[in-house]
Amino acid sequence: MQAGHAIGVDLGGTKILAGIVDRDGKVVRRHERPTPQDSQEHVLAELEAAVAELIDDSVVAVGLGAPSPIDQARGVVVRCTNLPLENAPLRERMHERFGVAVGLDNDANAAAIGEWRAGAGRGEDDLVMLTLGTGVGGGVVSGGKPFRGRDGAGAELGHVVLVHGGRPCQGVCTGHGHLEAYVSGTAATAAAHEAFGPSADAHRLVRLAAEGDAKAKELLEEVGRYLGSGIGSFVNIFGPQLVVLGGGFGVAAYDYLREPAEEVLRREALEPMRSAVRWAKAELGTAAGLIGAAFVGFEALDAS
Amino acid sequence: MQAGHAIGVDLGGTKILAGIVDRDGKVVRRHERPTPQDSQEHVLAELEAAVAELIDDSVVAVGLGAPSPIDQARGVVVRCTNLPLENAPLRERMHERFGVAVGLDNDANAAAIGEWRAGAGRGEDDLVMLTLGTGVGGGVVSGGKPFRGRDGAGAELGHVVLVHGGRPCQGVCTGHGHLEAYVSGTAATAAAHEAFGPSADAHRLVRLAAEGDAKAKELLEEVGRYLGSGIGSFVNIFGPQLVVLGGGFGVAAYDYLREPAEEVLRREALEPMRSAVRWAKAELGTAAGLIGAAFVGFEALDAS
Repeated sequence: MQAGHAIGVDLGGTKILAGIVDRDGKVVRRHERPTPQDSQEHVLAELEAAVAELIDDSVVAVGLGAPSPIDQARGVVVRCTNLPLENAPLRERMHERFGVAVGLDNDANAAAIGEWRAGAGRGEDDLVMLTLGTGVGGGVVSGGKPFRGRDGAGAELGHVVLVHGGRPCQGVCTGHGHLEAYVSGTAATAAAHEAFGPSADAHRLVRLAAEGDAKAKELLEEVGRYLGSGIGSFVNIFGPQLVVLGGGFGVAAYDYLREPAEEVLRREALEPMRSAVRWAKAELGTAAGLIGAAFVGFEALDAS
Repeated sequence: MQAGHAIGVDLGGTKILAGIVDRDGKVVRRHERPTPQDSQEHVLAELEAAVAELIDDSVVAVGLGAPSPIDQARGVVVRCTNLPLENAPLRERMHERFGVAVGLDNDANAAAIGEWRAGAGRGEDDLVMLTLGTGVGGGVVSGGKPFRGRDGAGAELGHVVLVHGGRPCQGVCTGHGHLEAYVSGTAATAAAHEAFGPSADAHRLVRLAAEGDAKAKELLEEVGRYLGSGIGSFVNIFGPQLVVLGGGFGVAAYDYLREPAEEVLRREALEPMRSAVRWAKAELGTAAGLIGAAFVGFEALDAS
């Protein structure tokens, strides 16, 4: 393995977070800039600018996490819900500009890889991470390797069917009853609206629960029970030793979601998977994505 | 790769099916005997007898498929629902007796491997197979390799949650709303009972539908829609190019299940996975398990 640093870039709907990261997952230097919304060319230019801001002779790889399924064979972002990046040839473009190995991944996969290499999942060979935020992202490490499905497009864990024929899903998704429609921050905000009026949101729900509000607790427990069913499915499929909950809402609500989720999980999961699984709260906060993206860069370098 | 044959053994609840299989998946010779129910020792002795009946100098490996999660690290059958095999050390026992490489797998994984190597999935690198019979078994090939989850215990696709808080699952499973409770032959038989009386079953439902009975068709279409949701989840997780439907009920009802399933799948699956997926009916019938088990034997040989 070549020594040196990788630059990890986490492309979000509002911000580009970038950092120089070492092989241990330590962030040496960071940079942040707004994500432009107007054109693909502008987004690509700002991504390049974020990397150019940090790059030095120690940098041997660049990794990017984007909120989209990825076509790994072509190194292309397939379709971001919120950004004009359809079919953007990110890998080739960055490689041409900077001349180093470039890796590309879905943002939720990148976050899972970050927690696996440098956060709550250090030392585990099999973990599932769910990122509960505006949507629900999923990332899987299986047998000591990131699991990405065919061409790296898969492991869209937020879009498993949890309630056949249930609530319409969000954004461009035409599905019904997907996990995302029940356990995302957006879903919790909808529940908060209904119970506490239009100014309430998911984070207000957590604050109210912390103050002892019974209704807020009950609503979060309901989210936790849905989460337990979803995680039960993933445990029966992947048999992870560890389930990591991340994302803004997932971390904030962790203490309220975990117990009801675990109760349902114990019912839904089969042996020997059921007895093996533990829980953890994500540790890296908003840095998980860029740290994981850096490891995706190292991965591309080591494979080249 | 070493030339020669493998003996594949499919351990079922009522029958032990065994066969000598070549590297192309052709069954050279077969043997069948009843599965004893009374003791672990008796089952193991009959498994040995089935292999002993077939073995000759051309046999370089033995593979077994069993209706149980498998602990691959220990080579142990964890728990069969219907047979006294809890913690049976199958791999070691067979290796000691016959002195050849021995592989062990879940029966649904074995069936999927059989269809992949010698049936409907030949040449595919990514497929999901569902076996609809008494229960629902699942097998996955991902990136040109069988996917088994941690320690080979995973990919229990029949036990994903399809309806949060829904119908109780079957057998030893304590879950609710699992795929198996909606699309197994057993679930179809329950629907047939309700509509056509206690003598009707899943296969009667298929015959009635073939005769044009509207109620029978509607009941099978309902099963198909549930199936579409379940397969939608697997497509979003694994991104297979091919979905194979097998098992006694799955093959018999294929023509009635496929269209409604595909309609729901198109709604539930995301791009780019949605556009990539095709359907096929299993081709190997009851031989899929023993042929796949033989390939599990070859796999153990090639890895040794």
